[in-house]
Amino acid sequence: MPHLRSAAFTLLLPAGSATDPDGQSGAAQLVNGMVYRGAGERDARALSNALDDLGVQRGGGVGVEYTTHSGALLADDLEAALALYADIARRPLLPEAELDAERALALQAIQSLNDNPTQRLFVELAKVYFPGPFGRSTLGEVDELQRIDHAALQADHAARYQPGGGVLTVAGGVEPERVREIAERLFGDWQGSPPPTPQPQARTEPHYQHLQQATNQTQIAVAYPSLTLDDPDYYHERLALNVLSGGMASRLFTEVRTKRGLVYSVFAGPRLYKGLGLVLSYAGTQPERAQECIDVLLGELRRVSEGVTEDELARARTGLLAALVMQGESTGARASAMASDLFLIGRPRSLDEIRGAVDAITLDSLNRYLRQHPAHDFAVLTLGPAPVEITSNV
Amino acid sequence: MPHLRSAAFTLLLPAGSATDPDGQSGAAQLVNGMVYRGAGERDARALSNALDDLGVQRGGGVGVEYTTHSGALLADDLEAALALYADIARRPLLPEAELDAERALALQAIQSLNDNPTQRLFVELAKVYFPGPFGRSTLGEVDELQRIDHAALQADHAARYQPGGGVLTVAGGVEPERVREIAERLFGDWQGSPPPTPQPQARTEPHYQHLQQATNQTQIAVAYPSLTLDDPDYYHERLALNVLSGGMASRLFTEVRTKRGLVYSVFAGPRLYKGLGLVLSYAGTQPERAQECIDVLLGELRRVSEGVTEDELARARTGLLAALVMQGESTGARASAMASDLFLIGRPRSLDEIRGAVDAITLDSLNRYLRQHPAHDFAVLTLGPAPVEITSNV
Repeated sequence: MPHLRSAAFTLLLPAGSATDPDGQSGAAQLVNGMVYRGAGERDARALSNALDDLGVQRGGGVGVEYTTHSGALLADDLEAALALYADIARRPLLPEAELDAERALALQAIQSLNDNPTQRLFVELAKVYFPGPFGRSTLGEVDELQRIDHAALQADHAARYQPGGGVLTVAGGVEPERVREIAERLFGDWQGSPPPTPQPQARTEPHYQHLQQATNQTQIAVAYPSLTLDDPDYYHERLALNVLSGGMASRLFTEVRTKRGLVYSVFAGPRLYKGLGLVLSYAGTQPERAQECIDVLLGELRRVSEGVTEDELARARTGLLAALVMQGESTGARASAMASDLFLIGRPRSLDEIRGAVDAITLDSLNRYLRQHPAHDFAVLTLGPAPVEITSNV
Repeated sequence: MPHLRSAAFTLLLPAGSATDPDGQSGAAQLVNGMVYRGAGERDARALSNALDDLGVQRGGGVGVEYTTHSGALLADDLEAALALYADIARRPLLPEAELDAERALALQAIQSLNDNPTQRLFVELAKVYFPGPFGRSTLGEVDELQRIDHAALQADHAARYQPGGGVLTVAGGVEPERVREIAERLFGDWQGSPPPTPQPQARTEPHYQHLQQATNQTQIAVAYPSLTLDDPDYYHERLALNVLSGGMASRLFTEVRTKRGLVYSVFAGPRLYKGLGLVLSYAGTQPERAQECIDVLLGELRRVSEGVTEDELARARTGLLAALVMQGESTGARASAMASDLFLIGRPRSLDEIRGAVDAITLDSLNRYLRQHPAHDFAVLTLGPAPVEITSNV
């Protein structure tokens, strides 16, 4: 992207909540905060100053499979910024005196969940859908966070902040050759591998659960099995999801929102892990209309298997390709997408590759795929003042 | 931005909650939804299809002073998209049969406020800070929304969707000359002016109010007077705010978050109206530490008047200028910033102009300004299980 003056980077390390040590749920979150409290020759204050001296806009965070440390800044300052991030990842001070302040932040984030029903819904949905380590909250659990001492923190950083399976991506106004030189110098001698992330084990039967909370709205989440990014049929599934939940004319927007006024926001989208893909869908509605809302929502999720129209396919394709062009013009979006691709399938998909795959799908091939692969095994979670009824054919 | 394949536009019309007709709070919100339910020769379905056929990613919404309709898409499709938006703004069908569904959406948005304490806090803070029309919720009020009938909706659209004071901006891969031609053809013959927006009247004395709600966290908001965008001292104030709340090394992040672990997020930033500017600050913390949190927060807001250091000024400047470069590379951010500038001061500030103004500020001039203009007249609102004490010298 030689016309740009900015650059963005993503450093992805396979240290997510799924590999938090047993009994230490929230460990990745704690490490993610502590590595910014001094690194290399800089204490916490000096490191913060150094990052701000470069105008780095920080991003990233802890996920289930990995932690990302990302940033955006002027391209001319990329080398200096990556030198700081090499310290942050490889040589953090992890000062014992600051552990309690960092822990207090992590506990606050958990505490605020009850004030954010939509966020809580998705934390709880993961627990419902993934009975094992993939169901753990990336925020951690209060009692386990309180148990992590300084020695455990150091041990966890040493074990999991390892380059094996990690990824560094850069997008923006810097020559690729220059980026390779910088990365080689800063990370080239880094060796070692973190403990392997277990395979995600998802629930394989329909399920419904309700969480009682005195909210004003009933929150509805649905998860069901879908495809991995490297599945040959992935773009069939992706286009079908855009028919369901792309723009204003998409089925969920039209049926749940526009026609019936049931929800202010509704969506369905892909959630990709290494070796497993699923669809997440959401709607939030007034309690007295929650039953109608879940009936319409599940009805639409099921109905896609009956096929889509030529116009719907054309709109889904246009929406995906337009979004792709915009992603290609944003340094942050591009660095992040490349990192995710590299983690999931070992290589970044080029924009041309995605365009080609999307263009190759015909109405016949899409509808044949959908007929053979109806949405199934819905895991439904509601949160609110009262449960709903789920019809038997989920 | 000739190297880009995408384009973004913002159509700003001075129809905000401050000019909602008396007794019809929420009218701008209702009109904003209804104009997408068919326009020109297209009914609701056909209009949604047409927007999605172009892959338009919609944005915008209702503010206090204006409504924006914005979008991002492929530059080649800009003309077709703006033709649709000319219909949406000038020739909406406003179908009576769909008014109740749209009203239901507006009511849901209000209902969800109680499930989103942070959002509710800022809605209520506006009511505290602006006793008049500027204090109205952009979401409207339940009883007043229920009172708006179809005739009132049509009358409101006719009165307020007028070009006087409105703005259309475009950024991206389209020649300016071409944009002017398109805009002239689609909007050139549009004439008329909406009712004038009243001058904002802010509270002029310190104030504290508490909203009782059984939340897990205590939410804290502070508002206090600041400068308008066209004030000669505006960039002094802007840089001082970046010292307070720019990056990781900023004072609020350091004192409230990093050192004490009081909050997961804390910020202070400018809020600009035509003829009035203020600072909004926020922190959310556990109830038992709310007193400490508000003491530290207000202490830092006050302490800026004692001056900043040379290093702090350098970091604040770097942060602002880096953010400016990134804004200049994003079509959406650029179109939106130009629209806001045109509304507030009648012309878009160029990136060079902002850079020049920021570079011209010296440590001496900044500290002289800050000494003479201490933060004052804090309006503080808390929401949570218990109030705090505000020390007398607010």
